[in-house]
Amino acid sequence: MLSQRAHINRVFHALGDPTRRAMVEKLSEGPVSVSSLAKPLAITLAAVVQHLQVLEKSGLVHTRKVGRVRTCRIEPRGLTVAERWISDRRSLWERRLDRLGNLLSEVEED
Amino acid sequence: MLSQRAHINRVFHALGDPTRRAMVEKLSEGPVSVSSLAKPLAITLAAVVQHLQVLEKSGLVHTRKVGRVRTCRIEPRGLTVAERWISDRRSLWERRLDRLGNLLSEVEED
Repeated sequence: MLSQRAHINRVFHALGDPTRRAMVEKLSEGPVSVSSLAKPLAITLAAVVQHLQVLEKSGLVHTRKVGRVRTCRIEPRGLTVAERWISDRRSLWERRLDRLGNLLSEVEED
Repeated sequence: MLSQRAHINRVFHALGDPTRRAMVEKLSEGPVSVSSLAKPLAITLAAVVQHLQVLEKSGLVHTRKVGRVRTCRIEPRGLTVAERWISDRRSLWERRLDRLGNLLSEVEED
């Protein structure tokens, strides 16, 4: 089991690459085979498989082999981890702004 | 003016690095000087400045020099860009699941 910090690291590392984000974009429309996923990308199938491994380890994508075809689909856990990290940063920052606002209005009232 | 795609690329590239995420985490608690930001990080000041430039260009951080001190603060635009990309992926994926669910219940009713 990954620690929360290690999971966050893996998800943001995975999303940091434009090819992997293009793969997540494609998969959010629905599951596809590895070869269909590779088709629009100007990289080798071996490179696609490597990117898929990074996406799988981060919990952003799930792949499953049935017969000779490996199918990929979105795994929402990874997206949730990234969303939560960002919204935590935003809410800390906004709470700070609120406190500043309150402070300013107190100063004005004095 | 950056295109939306170029902005997304910059933000996710910036957030893909754990040192830069640590800097965003620190700054979400409030603005600090570059030297205070550098203190807990086990890297040179020059490296901190380079990371800050990446964060500034992505719209995640704003820096401003007053006298001899450069102060850094969160710039919410960058966080918004990343949040929107993720929530767009999630909602596409969830809409697809909903359609599948509807289809399944129609099949069951028949």
